[in-house]
Amino acid sequence: MKRILLLGAGLSASTLIKYLLDHASENNWQLRVVDQSLELVKHKLAGHPNGEALSFNALEREERWAELQQADLVISMLPARFHMEIARDCLELKKHLITPSYISPEMKELNEEVQKAGLIFMNEIGVDPGIDHMSAMRIIDSIKNLGGEITGFKSYCGGLIAPESDTNPWNYKFTWNPRNVVLAAQGGTARYIDRHQYKYIPYTQVFSRLDNISVHEYGEFEGYANRDSLSYRHIYGLDDIPTIYRGTLRKSGFCQAWNIFVQLGLTDDHVILQDSENMTPRSFLNAFLPFDEELTVEEKFRNFCRQYGVTDLYRFEWLGLFEDSSQIGLKNATPAQILEKILVEKWVLEPQDKDMLVMVHQFTYLLNGEKRFIESSMVNLGDDQVHTAMSKTVGYPVGICAKLILNGHISERGVLLPTKPEIYDPILDELEDLGVVFQELEKVV
Amino acid sequence: MKRILLLGAGLSASTLIKYLLDHASENNWQLRVVDQSLELVKHKLAGHPNGEALSFNALEREERWAELQQADLVISMLPARFHMEIARDCLELKKHLITPSYISPEMKELNEEVQKAGLIFMNEIGVDPGIDHMSAMRIIDSIKNLGGEITGFKSYCGGLIAPESDTNPWNYKFTWNPRNVVLAAQGGTARYIDRHQYKYIPYTQVFSRLDNISVHEYGEFEGYANRDSLSYRHIYGLDDIPTIYRGTLRKSGFCQAWNIFVQLGLTDDHVILQDSENMTPRSFLNAFLPFDEELTVEEKFRNFCRQYGVTDLYRFEWLGLFEDSSQIGLKNATPAQILEKILVEKWVLEPQDKDMLVMVHQFTYLLNGEKRFIESSMVNLGDDQVHTAMSKTVGYPVGICAKLILNGHISERGVLLPTKPEIYDPILDELEDLGVVFQELEKVV
Repeated sequence: MKRILLLGAGLSASTLIKYLLDHASENNWQLRVVDQSLELVKHKLAGHPNGEALSFNALEREERWAELQQADLVISMLPARFHMEIARDCLELKKHLITPSYISPEMKELNEEVQKAGLIFMNEIGVDPGIDHMSAMRIIDSIKNLGGEITGFKSYCGGLIAPESDTNPWNYKFTWNPRNVVLAAQGGTARYIDRHQYKYIPYTQVFSRLDNISVHEYGEFEGYANRDSLSYRHIYGLDDIPTIYRGTLRKSGFCQAWNIFVQLGLTDDHVILQDSENMTPRSFLNAFLPFDEELTVEEKFRNFCRQYGVTDLYRFEWLGLFEDSSQIGLKNATPAQILEKILVEKWVLEPQDKDMLVMVHQFTYLLNGEKRFIESSMVNLGDDQVHTAMSKTVGYPVGICAKLILNGHISERGVLLPTKPEIYDPILDELEDLGVVFQELEKVV
Repeated sequence: MKRILLLGAGLSASTLIKYLLDHASENNWQLRVVDQSLELVKHKLAGHPNGEALSFNALEREERWAELQQADLVISMLPARFHMEIARDCLELKKHLITPSYISPEMKELNEEVQKAGLIFMNEIGVDPGIDHMSAMRIIDSIKNLGGEITGFKSYCGGLIAPESDTNPWNYKFTWNPRNVVLAAQGGTARYIDRHQYKYIPYTQVFSRLDNISVHEYGEFEGYANRDSLSYRHIYGLDDIPTIYRGTLRKSGFCQAWNIFVQLGLTDDHVILQDSENMTPRSFLNAFLPFDEELTVEEKFRNFCRQYGVTDLYRFEWLGLFEDSSQIGLKNATPAQILEKILVEKWVLEPQDKDMLVMVHQFTYLLNGEKRFIESSMVNLGDDQVHTAMSKTVGYPVGICAKLILNGHISERGVLLPTKPEIYDPILDELEDLGVVFQELEKVV
C-alpha cells in the first residue's frame, strides 16, 4: 500500500481529497491528511476506509517527521510560505513532493539536489498557476510541431460567479480572498510586450486599459493586466515572442467601476483613517471627496465619476455607499480594510451560490505563410460550496499528478513545472473526463 | 571667546557661515566649521580671523569628541539622520545644539534629560520647517491675544525660480533635490481637515486637486496637498481647529502637466525598465502608451493628455520628450530615474539664475462676531547661486537663534521648536532687517 501524506485540509483541498479517495482502492493508496483541526479532516474523509485523519502542527518538524518518513508522496496544500520547510525534509527523506504554488527562488535552488536524489518536486500544478501552463503548452507544442511560429500569446484567467448565481450589478462575488481582490494590481507597474515593444501600465491605468473577451455562451468579459507577463516567455520556451500578455478576467463593466475606487483612494492600504470606527459608508466616501458647501455626497461623487466615464451610479448605490445609518466599526483601519468590509457584506456568497473559473488563451501564429489565430477557453462551474470551481481546478490536477508520480509515469526529475507533454497530456486528458474542458476556435486571420 | 562648532559646510550652510562670521567680532565668537572637505570650508570662511576650518569625519565619535568638548554651541547641518548621534554627545557634554531638521521621535524622547541638563536643543529652525512655524505662530498668538477664534489655517511653501530666471514653459527649475521633486507626494495619501471633516487625497488626485494662490507682484500659484497637515494642529496649539491644510506651491499650470507624468506611470520608482540604457525620450514615453498600429507617439500621447484636461503639449515638446535621436543611457533604471535624468538636463539652473522661496499663510478667524481673514506672504529671492533663497532662509534663522542662545536670550529648556514669542519675535524681527519680509493683507469677509 502506498502512502500519500497531505498537509493541509483547507477549502481548496476538498476536491483533491475526494479525488484521491475515489482512486484509493484501485491504486492501493492510503491517504493520510493532516490539519490542525482533526474534526475538519474527519469530515472531509467521511469515514473512507483508505483515509486516515491526523491532527498535529505540520509546521513543527518533530511532529511531522515520523509521518513524512513513512510517506511515498507528500502534497503540501499549506500556505506557500511554508513549502520550503517541507521541501527540505522531503529532500532529506527522499520523498516526492507536490505543491500547487509558484516556485520560489529558494525552491528553484534545490533543483540539482532533487535531481540527484531522483525525486520529483512538482510545483504550479493547480489552476493558475497550473492548468494555464498545461493547456498553453499543449497548444504551443502543437503549433511548433506543425512548424508554426508563434507571434502572440495572450492569456486570461478569472475566478468569478456562475451565471445562475450572478445576481448583483457588479457581476461579482468573493469566491477568492477578498483582501487580494481589494489590493489587486497594487504590487507594482504591470509589464508586458506587444509586437516587440515593452509596455508598462501603472496602477492608475490598470483598470482602464482593458481587453475585451467574449466567451461562447458566457458573454462579455474584460481583462486587466497582471503584474508580470514577461517571465512566462522563458517558462513557455517563447523567449523571442513579439507579444505576450497575461490578464485577469472580470465581467464587462466591472473594471470601469472598480477604477473609481482606485482613483478616489479607497483601495489604499497605508493611511490610517481618523476615527475610522465611527465612519459610515457615506462618511467614508465623503472623506475622499473635496469639501463643498453646496453639493451633496452624491453630487460630488457623480462629478468625480464623470471624469472617468462613469455616469450611472447604480453599482455604488447597490453597495450602500451613500448610506449613513450604520457604522462600519473598524478601528484604526485603512481605506482598503474599510472598503473590504463594505464589499464582503454585499459580495457574499449565498449558500446555494456557485463559483466559476474562466480561462482564455489567444494565440496568433504563422503557418505556411498564413497568419492564424487560436482561441482556447475553459469555463468551469462549481458544484456547490465544497466542490467549488476553484477547489476542483486546483484539486484535480494535483490529484492526477499524484497518481502519475506514484504509478511511475513521470520520468523527469528535479524541481518541476507541468510544462512537458508526459505531464500535461495525461493530466489534460483526464481533466476533460472530469469536466474541465477547453473549447478551441481556430481561424485564418 | 565663545566657540560655535558647525558640523557640515554644504550648500545650505553658506549664508549661515556668512551670518555667523559677520557677527563674530561684535559678539566675540570663534566659528569652527567641520567638513570632510577642508578646501570647501576654507573657501567658505574666506580667511576670516574668527573662523577656523577643520576637516574630520564628524560621524566618528572619537574624531569629533574633543571639538564638541570645547564648544559652547553646536550646530548640526549634517543630513538629518545623523543628528541623533550628535545630540547624545551634546547631552553628555552639556552643550546646546541647533538643527534645522524635523524633530525625530528619538530626539523628542531626549526632552526630559535635556531639560534637566539645562540645555537647549533647538530644531526645525530653517525655512520649512522653521520660518513657517515662527511666522504662523506670531499671527496665531496675536489673534488669540485679541480674543479671536481661529477657524482655518492654510499654509503653502515652495522652492521655485525667480521671475528674472523663469525662462521655461514649466516655470520651474531644480533649486532643490531633483529626486524629491520627481517622487513628490508618493509618501502616502495626504490628510487634512476641512471644516471639521477629515479629508484624504491619494497620489492619483494630488496634482489635480489644487488651491489657487495669488501673490502680490509674483502672479498666480497653485498649491497641492502635503502628506500630513494634521500634526500641525498640536504643534501650533490649534487642536480643535476646523480647517488645517499644508501645501506645496508651484506656478499655475505646472501641476496639471506634472499630473500627466503621474498618471502615465513615469514617476514610478519600483519597476525596472527593460533595456533602459538604450531608451530615447520618445521610446521611454511610448513604453507607457498602449500599442497602436495607426497612431504616432504624439497622437497617442495627445489622446492620453486630453483625458486629464491637457490639450496643449508645448511643455512636453519643450522637454524633448518626443525626441528619438539620443539615448538616455541609464542602466536598469526605473521610470522615475529616467524622468529625473530628462528633467535635470532641461530644468538646470544657468550660472546667473536665482531661486525664489515663496511662503503663504491664510487664516480665517472670528473676532467680535466678525469673520476675518489674514493672508501673510513672504517671497525671498536668491542673491546668486551661493546665497540662494534657500541658503538664506535656512541660514539666517539658524544664525540668529545661535546668537540668542549664546547671549542668554532664550529661557526655555529642552528639545524645542521655535513656537514661543521669546524665540520667534527676535528672529522674525531680525529676518525682516535681512530682507525676509512677510506682507500681511487683512480683511473682513
